[in-house]
Amino acid sequence: MFVVDDVTLRPVAFVRGGRREPTDDGWGSETCRIELVPPFDRRSLAGLDEFSHVDVVFVFHLVDEASVVTDARRPRGRADWPEVGIFAQRGRVRPNRIGVSTCEIESVDDDVIVVRGLDAIDGTPVLDIKPHMSGFHPRSAITEPGWASEIMAEYW
Amino acid sequence: MFVVDDVTLRPVAFVRGGRREPTDDGWGSETCRIELVPPFDRRSLAGLDEFSHVDVVFVFHLVDEASVVTDARRPRGRADWPEVGIFAQRGRVRPNRIGVSTCEIESVDDDVIVVRGLDAIDGTPVLDIKPHMSGFHPRSAITEPGWASEIMAEYW
Repeated sequence: MFVVDDVTLRPVAFVRGGRREPTDDGWGSETCRIELVPPFDRRSLAGLDEFSHVDVVFVFHLVDEASVVTDARRPRGRADWPEVGIFAQRGRVRPNRIGVSTCEIESVDDDVIVVRGLDAIDGTPVLDIKPHMSGFHPRSAITEPGWASEIMAEYW
Repeated sequence: MFVVDDVTLRPVAFVRGGRREPTDDGWGSETCRIELVPPFDRRSLAGLDEFSHVDVVFVFHLVDEASVVTDARRPRGRADWPEVGIFAQRGRVRPNRIGVSTCEIESVDDDVIVVRGLDAIDGTPVLDIKPHMSGFHPRSAITEPGWASEIMAEYW
């Protein structure tokens, strides 16, 4: 028998402000606040202001779980892009509905991080916040298919 | 009243093989398998072989929840590094115990991804798998404190 235990997590913060609808493109100029919830406070962010960027792990909370794709789909439903597995694309309708994005830190104010270019909407639950460290970049050359570049053309 | 709803997630895969103890350094040469669990199968990975790297979201499952830090600590307990908030470092003893790492795809074989340089041990539950896309890299110059470079010196 194959047993998979569920994992229960609790948001550590919420996105406040910024975009209110999960539209596809033009995220680069959005600013919003990542507001910690108790027991987290300014001490949880000590020293974060020495980093320029942060990696945010969040939940696509508006995605209906019934719409989650487990096999394959065309990104954005575009007929000119191939049907690829849900783990070969970054669409929102994914198992566990987790997003991971890197954005710029504008300021760290007490228990709030003000960020620019986070592709998450107002009210988004945040599961983790990590400083962006260059040491975690890929250690070898990156290759990716053409559609992966095309889909990003207007994204930021 | 401030209400924070828990989020319940289910692993989509498990790490098999590779390192069996969560030691600190030398991860770059490790290879392991990311094995999907049902209902996920080869269709969930269709097209992933066109990418060179994958971003893996996983759980530091051996971290005792009682040891999780919510405020600040010195990375690796090193007296020569500053005490920084848990969200200003990438240590394992973090709220929700989530790791996010980029590693190289060696091959995609049916419902298994063979990867190199994933800093997760045998048995690790995987919550999400995303293709690594250059379009999600930082859009502005990165800065980070000195300790963040020093801690990575022997990591890979």
